[in-house]
Amino acid sequence: MAERIRLGMVGGGKDAFIGGVHRIAARLDGEFDLVAGALSSTPERARDSGAALGLDPARCYADFEQMAQAESTRPDGIRAVAIVTPNHMHAAPAMAFLKRGIHVICDKPLTATMDQAQALAAAVAEAQALFILTHNYTAYPMIRQARDMVARGDLGQIRVVQVEYAQDWLTEAADSGNKQAEWRTDPERSGAGGAIGDIGTHAHNLACFVTGQKVESLAADLQSFVPGRRVDDNANILLRFDGGARGMLWCSQVAPGCENGLRLRIFGDKGGLEWGQEDPNYLWFTPFGDAKRLLTRRGAGATDAANAVSRTPGGHPEGYLEGFANIYTAAAAAIRAADAGQTPDLSLLPGIEAGLDGMRFIRACIRSAQSNASWVAP
Amino acid sequence: MAERIRLGMVGGGKDAFIGGVHRIAARLDGEFDLVAGALSSTPERARDSGAALGLDPARCYADFEQMAQAESTRPDGIRAVAIVTPNHMHAAPAMAFLKRGIHVICDKPLTATMDQAQALAAAVAEAQALFILTHNYTAYPMIRQARDMVARGDLGQIRVVQVEYAQDWLTEAADSGNKQAEWRTDPERSGAGGAIGDIGTHAHNLACFVTGQKVESLAADLQSFVPGRRVDDNANILLRFDGGARGMLWCSQVAPGCENGLRLRIFGDKGGLEWGQEDPNYLWFTPFGDAKRLLTRRGAGATDAANAVSRTPGGHPEGYLEGFANIYTAAAAAIRAADAGQTPDLSLLPGIEAGLDGMRFIRACIRSAQSNASWVAP
Amino acid sequence: MAERIRLGMVGGGKDAFIGGVHRIAARLDGEFDLVAGALSSTPERARDSGAALGLDPARCYADFEQMAQAESTRPDGIRAVAIVTPNHMHAAPAMAFLKRGIHVICDKPLTATMDQAQALAAAVAEAQALFILTHNYTAYPMIRQARDMVARGDLGQIRVVQVEYAQDWLTEAADSGNKQAEWRTDPERSGAGGAIGDIGTHAHNLACFVTGQKVESLAADLQSFVPGRRVDDNANILLRFDGGARGMLWCSQVAPGCENGLRLRIFGDKGGLEWGQEDPNYLWFTPFGDAKRLLTRRGAGATDAANAVSRTPGGHPEGYLEGFANIYTAAAAAIRAADAGQTPDLSLLPGIEAGLDGMRFIRACIRSAQSNASWVAP
Amino acid sequence: MAERIRLGMVGGGKDAFIGGVHRIAARLDGEFDLVAGALSSTPERARDSGAALGLDPARCYADFEQMAQAESTRPDGIRAVAIVTPNHMHAAPAMAFLKRGIHVICDKPLTATMDQAQALAAAVAEAQALFILTHNYTAYPMIRQARDMVARGDLGQIRVVQVEYAQDWLTEAADSGNKQAEWRTDPERSGAGGAIGDIGTHAHNLACFVTGQKVESLAADLQSFVPGRRVDDNANILLRFDGGARGMLWCSQVAPGCENGLRLRIFGDKGGLEWGQEDPNYLWFTPFGDAKRLLTRRGAGATDAANAVSRTPGGHPEGYLEGFANIYTAAAAAIRAADAGQTPDLSLLPGIEAGLDGMRFIRACIRSAQSNASWVAP
Repeated sequence: MAERIRLGMVGGGKDAFIGGVHRIAARLDGEFDLVAGALSSTPERARDSGAALGLDPARCYADFEQMAQAESTRPDGIRAVAIVTPNHMHAAPAMAFLKRGIHVICDKPLTATMDQAQALAAAVAEAQALFILTHNYTAYPMIRQARDMVARGDLGQIRVVQVEYAQDWLTEAADSGNKQAEWRTDPERSGAGGAIGDIGTHAHNLACFVTGQKVESLAADLQSFVPGRRVDDNANILLRFDGGARGMLWCSQVAPGCENGLRLRIFGDKGGLEWGQEDPNYLWFTPFGDAKRLLTRRGAGATDAANAVSRTPGGHPEGYLEGFANIYTAAAAAIRAADAGQTPDLSLLPGIEAGLDGMRFIRACIRSAQSNASWVAP
Repeated sequence: MAERIRLGMVGGGKDAFIGGVHRIAARLDGEFDLVAGALSSTPERARDSGAALGLDPARCYADFEQMAQAESTRPDGIRAVAIVTPNHMHAAPAMAFLKRGIHVICDKPLTATMDQAQALAAAVAEAQALFILTHNYTAYPMIRQARDMVARGDLGQIRVVQVEYAQDWLTEAADSGNKQAEWRTDPERSGAGGAIGDIGTHAHNLACFVTGQKVESLAADLQSFVPGRRVDDNANILLRFDGGARGMLWCSQVAPGCENGLRLRIFGDKGGLEWGQEDPNYLWFTPFGDAKRLLTRRGAGATDAANAVSRTPGGHPEGYLEGFANIYTAAAAAIRAADAGQTPDLSLLPGIEAGLDGMRFIRACIRSAQSNASWVAP
Repeated sequence: MAERIRLGMVGGGKDAFIGGVHRIAARLDGEFDLVAGALSSTPERARDSGAALGLDPARCYADFEQMAQAESTRPDGIRAVAIVTPNHMHAAPAMAFLKRGIHVICDKPLTATMDQAQALAAAVAEAQALFILTHNYTAYPMIRQARDMVARGDLGQIRVVQVEYAQDWLTEAADSGNKQAEWRTDPERSGAGGAIGDIGTHAHNLACFVTGQKVESLAADLQSFVPGRRVDDNANILLRFDGGARGMLWCSQVAPGCENGLRLRIFGDKGGLEWGQEDPNYLWFTPFGDAKRLLTRRGAGATDAANAVSRTPGGHPEGYLEGFANIYTAAAAAIRAADAGQTPDLSLLPGIEAGLDGMRFIRACIRSAQSNASWVAP
Repeated sequence: MAERIRLGMVGGGKDAFIGGVHRIAARLDGEFDLVAGALSSTPERARDSGAALGLDPARCYADFEQMAQAESTRPDGIRAVAIVTPNHMHAAPAMAFLKRGIHVICDKPLTATMDQAQALAAAVAEAQALFILTHNYTAYPMIRQARDMVARGDLGQIRVVQVEYAQDWLTEAADSGNKQAEWRTDPERSGAGGAIGDIGTHAHNLACFVTGQKVESLAADLQSFVPGRRVDDNANILLRFDGGARGMLWCSQVAPGCENGLRLRIFGDKGGLEWGQEDPNYLWFTPFGDAKRLLTRRGAGATDAANAVSRTPGGHPEGYLEGFANIYTAAAAAIRAADAGQTPDLSLLPGIEAGLDGMRFIRACIRSAQSNASWVAP
């Protein structure tokens, strides 16, 4: 096993949710060591959060710019940085590190605005470093298997795609003390999209990842059900895919009883698949005319791509953190390859293109909704 | 127990599916006796089918007109008739019996065309007899309970409605020998709608029945995936309800792995409900902020309306036939009341209005699809 | 269709549970007409119950003896009688009708005591009429399919049988007003067995029916958890089958959250099966080394025996009443054959042998429990 | 965050299963660094495995004795060691490290024989270091919650416990190349118990952990279904608990369709609980007389003890590795406390007593089986 990759983090201080997830994901397979951070825009919180994580105080920076500069000149400086700030603070730090040759692992959606996304895309194009976007749900073993099954024709020609992502945590107006709810419903920080940006992009990305098709047109009916809410909290969307599939995407943050209900169903002329994120070790497959199968992780028929991101035998459930770690571990391999002057295998790693697709999806939803759910090409 | 109601049947000969269902439903609670029929348009088949059912040969008629005439003049003539023919043959027989004061229990959708529907509606308005439409799924106990729960505010203000009805039996081009598939995919007999007429109307009806809201506008994207198919076999539809709810309706007959997947989910600002037809004795209910409950037929919290259509203790599953029988048994009560000169309780019995709503739904779907899924009021 | 079989009923008056079930089951396929009854040992209740069922008052009898005598001499007398009284009142009426050549359809367990059972068995052996025991759970389509699959070797050599039947309705001491609870916990009426007699016999019967093996030895640990209860309300039982299988049987009426949880799991050296009564249209099958299949009623791989007792297409759930009706409908066929002087096909119809097996099971459980769960041969 | 605890490992070389699990569990919360190992009894494999894990070659030892000696004298020596060898190799290394004051984290069952277990227990009693046994299933959040619910009386007096652990991977005779199957079915290495030792001890431990009761007597019927197998591969066991509960334990490694089916059901006079290891984020709870609830990790009603071992929000599934990591993270806290001269909180950490209980359980099962499933006190 090679030496661990030195990792920095922007954002992810105390009370953050996704920062902790990234840290576990980075640690789980032993590929990264977190050694530096600009963990908060509040200096005291940045310091305290760093101390709580056991970081060297000298490497707890007040801001990402300072961090990028300092780390890029240290001999033991970070080789990669995780960016886990609210969406409006993705592009600037990402560009700061990329231009110094430090690999970037960035949370999604890509940015808060399309302008930021395009600027970032330009920076990625010029950079000597990798840009990886944590569309973590693509890395569940059974999703990899589903993708394989579609690709090799188990479902035949794909006709229908039903994808949804439903939550209930924003059913009521957020308390002012809930930092997660605050920034995610603030268009300045989250971007113009609410539910469509936060979770709709995951659903969109997953459907495309598994089917291998892109959305060529969509018609979106967006709602903000909670009084005073400034972004959408529910979206009903018709989809037309470039490979001929038709479908719907529902995302909601106001659906009581739904915790993190990302669910994908795909139907072709030879079979159907169904998967739900809350029970990720299962994949339902029905070859048309035959009995439904409950495929399991590491079970009969597991594909190489599924086994490659699987750690435990069937029946020993892997979950969200393992899926997230799969992104980090693949990122580590890509980073090691790149740093060794080899061509990294990015075929299953979401990057700037997936990020741009997500931003185009958000933009199309908003444009469509503004014209009464007319068809818009992303 | 009063004497059984003498029942006739139009359609439902050998090889028919829904005729047999109507017969069991009529028999299950002992309220009807089938005594006459025009079971097939083929005389020999009509005769044989009647014999197989033990009907008096004298009351096995060659056509519904002859039957209506003969039965209406017999002292022991039928008091009600079940019409279970393909859709294009609903209106004419229904009108023939209604005008002779014979109650009609008719399969859905109402008719094949809006013209037929309006003619029938006019006939119903003038008739001395009742017209009942077998939207059987509304009669499941847990659906009655769901309706009660919405009505009394357990879910608060309804925001989101997700309803779907997915099957897979038309995934491939129908064999020429499959009578069911033949007429249901023939626009002459089935009507302009395929999946939307056959099963979409059930989904539409159920969503409206439970929420108490009507669809005020819809945007429908219809597909005919199977080459050569002359009607839609899949539909993705955006819904806007008159009470403020927004939602989607998916119906499909080309979704491998789906047998008869009618599924309804409703979310309000205080709670959420979920129900699936294939497991009809369960109703999932989540009061916002509390744990999800698995409500069961005759279980804790069962409402009077649910218990009224329930025959067995909890855990002794009732199914499709019992639900269908609930329509027949309520029809019997209504018929007895009407025949006794009392006002029948039709509050939970689908009739001509539900039928017209269904036809308007089909028409709106087709118009919307013709204009690229633009919004159309049903 | 032949004329309906004229049916009488002993027991099943107002407030009874199982009498109503038998009536629906008899009616569902149109094979029987209920025309006479000794519905209650209380004359007034017998009369009222008969009136509520629309019976001719002249055929509402005060007791079964009078009924057997009268009906056996009427030209239009009953051809069959359903016995739905508490267990201690099964043998006497059954014998009264059998000796007059009237076919008997009797609820289970066979009797309250082994003496009664043996007397009844002797009467059956001498009778010119059929004796059918309503072990209704054997008549679910997926149970028929499971039996076929075991018989044809899909599971290989059966090794392990896990069967259970759990309810919760006797978790607390029964209210004095609950007639069901009263007689079922009264050893005078129910027999020495409580849960083992009421539901344990179903579990035992089902395991034997599906595996084709008999219990050759058992070790039973019985409990009466509710203070003052005079019969067992929970039983944990080790099983050894004559075909080499080993297993366990758990039955309980004090398991909160269990409604009517009859569940069977069978494992052989080539595969495993799982079925639950509350979701009876499903059968899980795993061929060893392959993916688990969700077999459905009328779905892929349905056997002839399953389809023979199935009325609706897959996805249109059939339930408890349909399963019960399957016994009645098969009984009708057997009765018609017998009355026509043919040999009835009783291969799948539970009768006196199944009844005696159940009584031996109860006796063995009690003997085993009395000797501290030592092994006892039934 | 304090410095990571330096960890060594005995066993866990290439091809081992549980060693890799321990390593991830140790790493997941960032509490340990693996720095030394005696990873295999084969020197070359030990060296290669160490290299693959990035260990300093100087700290890849040929055997545990050498490792214990060397590490205990290094200033940067390990503070804890994970023992992940086959069962017969637990006691000796554990004692070697304990007597040198190095904390031991040991896989279960405790040892292969009772003699070894008692020797180890004596060593633990005298040691200055902690001994922790990885009964990992006790550390799932919903199991912690279940234990809390039982303890605070949500279920009332516990009456019935049904626990099972079913797998299918030993359905056929193991290939000679399968190292896992080889040692686990070899009584010299595994101990006299097969399935009862490998997985029955988990089921037994879990039932006791959640109910707070101990098994005071058991009657075990053991089988070795696979020809030539020298240990049990299926066990049916009656249980009597010291708090009055009665129950059954089934464990099997020959149950096709069962991957890792550890399942616990507990019923008291006020409610019932159900949990399954393969879907560990759910806990079913029915208060008697009320609707069943689906409790979820971090959902409504989550207890402090459950939240304390939970990392992600509800709906973001945690699995086997997180549960295993909970043992390691609690071990880390205990080790830090002990090393700081404080009293470690061992209340929820399985240790030598749990290990002895498991060994007594195995012994009792074997003794009972030898006397035809008579009752034996563990």
